Amino acid sequence: MNNITDIHYGPLPADSPYVKPFRFHYTQNGKQKSWDLLKVHDSVSIVIFNVTRKKLVFVKQFRPAVYHGIISGDGVEPGCIDMKKYPPELAVTMELCAGIIDKPISTIEIAREEVLEECGYDIPVERIEEIIRYRSGVGTSGAEQTLFYAEVTDEDKIASAGGGVDDEIIDVVEYDLEEARKLTDKGTVITSPPSFLFGLLWFLTNRAPKN
Amino acid sequence: MNNITDIHYGPLPADSPYVKPFRFHYTQNGKQKSWDLLKVHDSVSIVIFNVTRKKLVFVKQFRPAVYHGIISGDGVEPGCIDMKKYPPELAVTMELCAGIIDKPISTIEIAREEVLEECGYDIPVERIEEIIRYRSGVGTSGAEQTLFYAEVTDEDKIASAGGGVDDEIIDVVEYDLEEARKLTDKGTVITSPPSFLFGLLWFLTNRAPKN
Repeated sequence: MNNITDIHYGPLPADSPYVKPFRFHYTQNGKQKSWDLLKVHDSVSIVIFNVTRKKLVFVKQFRPAVYHGIISGDGVEPGCIDMKKYPPELAVTMELCAGIIDKPISTIEIAREEVLEECGYDIPVERIEEIIRYRSGVGTSGAEQTLFYAEVTDEDKIASAGGGVDDEIIDVVEYDLEEARKLTDKGTVITSPPSFLFGLLWFLTNRAPKN
Repeated sequence: MNNITDIHYGPLPADSPYVKPFRFHYTQNGKQKSWDLLKVHDSVSIVIFNVTRKKLVFVKQFRPAVYHGIISGDGVEPGCIDMKKYPPELAVTMELCAGIIDKPISTIEIAREEVLEECGYDIPVERIEEIIRYRSGVGTSGAEQTLFYAEVTDEDKIASAGGGVDDEIIDVVEYDLEEARKLTDKGTVITSPPSFLFGLLWFLTNRAPKN
């Protein structure tokens, strides 16, 4: 998945369908204020536990945003990225199965589709449990994310499915409970988002088998 | 804090110091791809536990991004916001004490300043413990956030401090452990970000007093 070359970047075209920035104005206690924002889609995220093998199912993928976060933190300019020093593997993240809500179907149906498309498990919505809704960001975008939980078995697996659709390149990985628990230990430095860490710890606290 | 009026929004000026959108290009497995991104600052976030009163210390504030997320989810257009139907209180979030890294001082010093400026507790860096580093977002911005933990006492409180600096309007709130634990229960719908939920659950799992 990591055969990535020729990284560069430039201005955002005005017609980007994904990133729609704008300035928000308001008056608070008589004082005019503004805040620069971004419109992003609401989304779903699913903690998947394979009960046949007692493994958590996560996804890994190259994330341009994380790559940029790493190089810009070091002050690297857009036109001169040393890909030996900054190999794309640095920005391969581990995440929960997830997806944006970009179709007029229910949130749980979106979750069902993502479990199939990204991880290859075909389960009905009745086996998907809604856990918590929160805002995926509060600084620049306030989109809602719904966290779900699903237990799957090896028998739910469709051999030809998983890994994403269209242009997506997604690796499915499995973690046993002990390995997964270590990811929330003090001292961890991880490219995952906080929603991954919360979903994982919520599972370990509330749903993980006790032995 | 919620005396908020005259909400409207418009295009992002090209010189925004906060939101710097751009298009990122790369080639993956021989295929040219692009991803639209945003440069945001790295940040810190601090779980604060007042051991004198056995209370967690959180902050509340009006978040334009969350307000926009709520109204745009309902299809409300920028020029005609019904503030009776959508009162600003809907977008007052509960979060961990936090701040962006916008000064050339160490990350833990930034954390120390935020604990003082937002919550009014004056403690040395030796009493602030680094927990985990993760990426605060992986879709549109890949900035790093460092999660810290600090125990404070009533004696650390500076009467004149807290509530933010400059234009910030921040309320400090306290939660006992039982109230806080409920926020991570199944069925919660909250305007907080996942980093809040993770920091809270990490504390409950690893640092909360056991009785």
